[in-house]
Amino acid sequence: MFVARVVGEVWTTKKDKTLEGLRLLLVDPLGVEERARSGHRPGLVVAADPIGAGVGEEVVVSYGRAGRVAVGRGHDIAVEAAVVGIVDERSGKALV
Amino acid sequence: MFVARVVGEVWTTKKDKTLEGLRLLLVDPLGVEERARSGHRPGLVVAADPIGAGVGEEVVVSYGRAGRVAVGRGHDIAVEAAVVGIVDERSGKALV
Amino acid sequence: MFVARVVGEVWTTKKDKTLEGLRLLLVDPLGVEERARSGHRPGLVVAADPIGAGVGEEVVVSYGRAGRVAVGRGHDIAVEAAVVGIVDERSGKALV
Amino acid sequence: MFVARVVGEVWTTKKDKTLEGLRLLLVDPLGVEERARSGHRPGLVVAADPIGAGVGEEVVVSYGRAGRVAVGRGHDIAVEAAVVGIVDERSGKALV
Amino acid sequence: MFVARVVGEVWTTKKDKTLEGLRLLLVDPLGVEERARSGHRPGLVVAADPIGAGVGEEVVVSYGRAGRVAVGRGHDIAVEAAVVGIVDERSGKALV
Repeated sequence: MFVARVVGEVWTTKKDKTLEGLRLLLVDPLGVEERARSGHRPGLVVAADPIGAGVGEEVVVSYGRAGRVAVGRGHDIAVEAAVVGIVDERSGKALV
Repeated sequence: MFVARVVGEVWTTKKDKTLEGLRLLLVDPLGVEERARSGHRPGLVVAADPIGAGVGEEVVVSYGRAGRVAVGRGHDIAVEAAVVGIVDERSGKALV
Repeated sequence: MFVARVVGEVWTTKKDKTLEGLRLLLVDPLGVEERARSGHRPGLVVAADPIGAGVGEEVVVSYGRAGRVAVGRGHDIAVEAAVVGIVDERSGKALV
Repeated sequence: MFVARVVGEVWTTKKDKTLEGLRLLLVDPLGVEERARSGHRPGLVVAADPIGAGVGEEVVVSYGRAGRVAVGRGHDIAVEAAVVGIVDERSGKALV
Repeated sequence: MFVARVVGEVWTTKKDKTLEGLRLLLVDPLGVEERARSGHRPGLVVAADPIGAGVGEEVVVSYGRAGRVAVGRGHDIAVEAAVVGIVDERSGKALV
């Protein structure tokens, strides 16, 4: 799992039928401050959002089966990343 | 999942029999603009395409079981990345 | 699996119901000393902690199903990284 | 999946019994030309080869269960990367 | 799978019960020589070792279910990386 900031949405018309009705967010994984300055953070991820996060919010994202548990509840769907929580607060090193 | 641009195709004759009849695309994962300038975007991915994306289009790609759901519908196939949607529109930061 | 240092916690109110009651740690994967100086260590990971690690401790983290074994014991939960051990001692190259 | 060039082989005597009789190739994932110059391509991968690729050939490699489908056909084996096709031709950007 | 050099061990007392009795190695994934000079090799991995590799030896490591096949033989354990073979010999490009 990782913490990410929601930076946008993605819309598709031609898509796998198991994606119908799902909201797809573009999320930007957060790293520690020093690493962000070096420009080596990983790229954007597309995550299905069953929770209702807004652009600018920080979220926890799970990959793989864990993501499908949050979105599909036992359905076999073409999703492998999902928002599983909206961050209220974090302790520790600043993330940017 | 990630957003990628379709940059080409791959053809194979000697292959696993579960790949027969599948179209294999070379797709280039998109990052945010600043990261692209640093040259640190991840490498190209080969994704099976059950939807019919064209070279130059932007697509959403799923990995692992999620990709096999889109391609195999319950068949056990030697594929772990697939196009699951063609992007109509995106909001948020520009991707290149 | 990887060795990481616990650097903080993450709290969420709106979350997948399978995350309720789980403690989520921010952990920083450790690399070898020379790599840390280059600034290319991977980003922070969010790991569920069923063991009770404290901030500053070093832990072993497992991904995917292995992580759900440690946290869920057969339950299908939206978690894909978990603390599976607290490091007492390590031999070999120094990690920072 | 990714395109890689076969650069060598690996031989093991002490090994998991499910690897017996499998040919293990060292393969070098290909990226786009500009990225190769920056030196940031991912490292070498060890892939089981049920197809018979030669050193210098380009192959398509699948990870995880997809790789085990190509090698094990339902057997539970200690392999998570396999050659699933030999590339005849590619379109799009040059890969090096 | 990847080739790695064993660089040390990790000992834990507080741990998931499925890790009891397992030897955990710190292994350093090998890349090609040119990449090592750039300092961009991936970080250290912790791998369970059912085979008995020594520090300084080169090993083949499998991830995920493949690793659990080598260690757990059908048991559901909190491990996602394992030594599956000790390298006798390699052909192709030099790895460092």
